[in-house]
Amino acid sequence: MDNRRIRMIIEYDGGSYHGFQRQANASTIQEELEKAILRLTGEMVTVLGAGRTDAGVHALGQVVAFDTSSSIPAERWKVALNTYLPLDIRVVSAGRAEAGFHPQFQALRKTYMYKIFRSDCGCAFHRNHALCLSIPLAVSEMQRASAYFTGFHDFRSFCAAGSRVRSFEREVYHCALRDEWPWLIMEIEANGFLYNMVRIIMGTLLQVGQEKIPADQIPLIIAARDRALAGATASPQGLYMVKVEY
Amino acid sequence: MDNRRIRMIIEYDGGSYHGFQRQANASTIQEELEKAILRLTGEMVTVLGAGRTDAGVHALGQVVAFDTSSSIPAERWKVALNTYLPLDIRVVSAGRAEAGFHPQFQALRKTYMYKIFRSDCGCAFHRNHALCLSIPLAVSEMQRASAYFTGFHDFRSFCAAGSRVRSFEREVYHCALRDEWPWLIMEIEANGFLYNMVRIIMGTLLQVGQEKIPADQIPLIIAARDRALAGATASPQGLYMVKVEY
Repeated sequence: MDNRRIRMIIEYDGGSYHGFQRQANASTIQEELEKAILRLTGEMVTVLGAGRTDAGVHALGQVVAFDTSSSIPAERWKVALNTYLPLDIRVVSAGRAEAGFHPQFQALRKTYMYKIFRSDCGCAFHRNHALCLSIPLAVSEMQRASAYFTGFHDFRSFCAAGSRVRSFEREVYHCALRDEWPWLIMEIEANGFLYNMVRIIMGTLLQVGQEKIPADQIPLIIAARDRALAGATASPQGLYMVKVEY
Repeated sequence: MDNRRIRMIIEYDGGSYHGFQRQANASTIQEELEKAILRLTGEMVTVLGAGRTDAGVHALGQVVAFDTSSSIPAERWKVALNTYLPLDIRVVSAGRAEAGFHPQFQALRKTYMYKIFRSDCGCAFHRNHALCLSIPLAVSEMQRASAYFTGFHDFRSFCAAGSRVRSFEREVYHCALRDEWPWLIMEIEANGFLYNMVRIIMGTLLQVGQEKIPADQIPLIIAARDRALAGATASPQGLYMVKVEY
């Protein structure tokens, strides 16, 4: 039977899921995708993702791939799978991939976004899709601090403790904070990210915004390669995986 | 004891509630407000609202009022109540009202908004806060049709069957449809609204958008005073009570 690899872009509201990766006893994005494919084609496939988003983290452009021997034309997978998927997981596009395509290992560049909603009373509508903050923030200092993350660095200070990776070196192509009151939006592009890297960078910028860390100290925190010097890991509901490029 | 009337503007995500008005065996906005006040002050009060939004309908500017003998200063109610309210109901502002202030009977003008999100795959994020539609819509025809609702009319054709009201006459000051792709947003202001009026107007405009009703037929549908000639009641999750003026 003709086995083909399908590649899809999906978006999801991570609020109801324990992250992307399949787990025992917890609902995940990968599991929902595999269940929908099983119901559609009868096949038990493994869905590969470009990155393992954590519990509560969202995606606008997660890239996934899987092999199928189904005769469904590649361009029909979008409509067909959306019929079986929960409404908080959507296939945005689908097409045929090269046989060896791997969404994680072949990724050249990823973009994440972190959304902060500033309000003195929270927000009934954005509470699960942004970090809602009532504290005053020195935004221009945060913007000055964010520029220091651009470039090729060892990001060990901004990686969850206990992470086992070969190298902590990553190249950040772009890191900026847009002030669009009441929104404050960080966009960061890199050749890859360490575990919790974006959330720790955001947590550190929030320390800068509260004038607990001077903006100019960021290069020293990077150079120290010590997780203890960076800020807390910002909560997951503000984080979005936006784009993966190959 | 000094009894004072407090007036507040509240916003809520109606998705988890059976509308504004207290009901047996169902969670409502009014009940949550009254429970929060009970926990804060020990008082069992009745909270009056400017309008009874239906199950699933949202508010950005619902106006409520209640009497209290608590010594909490009027301007502190916002912070105090937000501590006790669920995160999907927020007090946006609070202050002292005149003794006889009634948020429903004294309202002079109300504004509602109906949000449509156009996408061929739904939307993981807006599914509970907008009507997500994949069908093509003739927006300019809908815009032409929407203009006919402005003015003083008998809106019996746009009122849920079985409604008992003294008069079906209302004056619509403004009714327009903004096309901000992928959003399509109707804003409507009137001296008052009949039961389901905004949702039935939206349902009728959707018939126009699908070319099932010509735009020019709206004046005839209004004149007929027959609910059966208007479109279906559009679903609640797109509707927002935006503002109440006194």
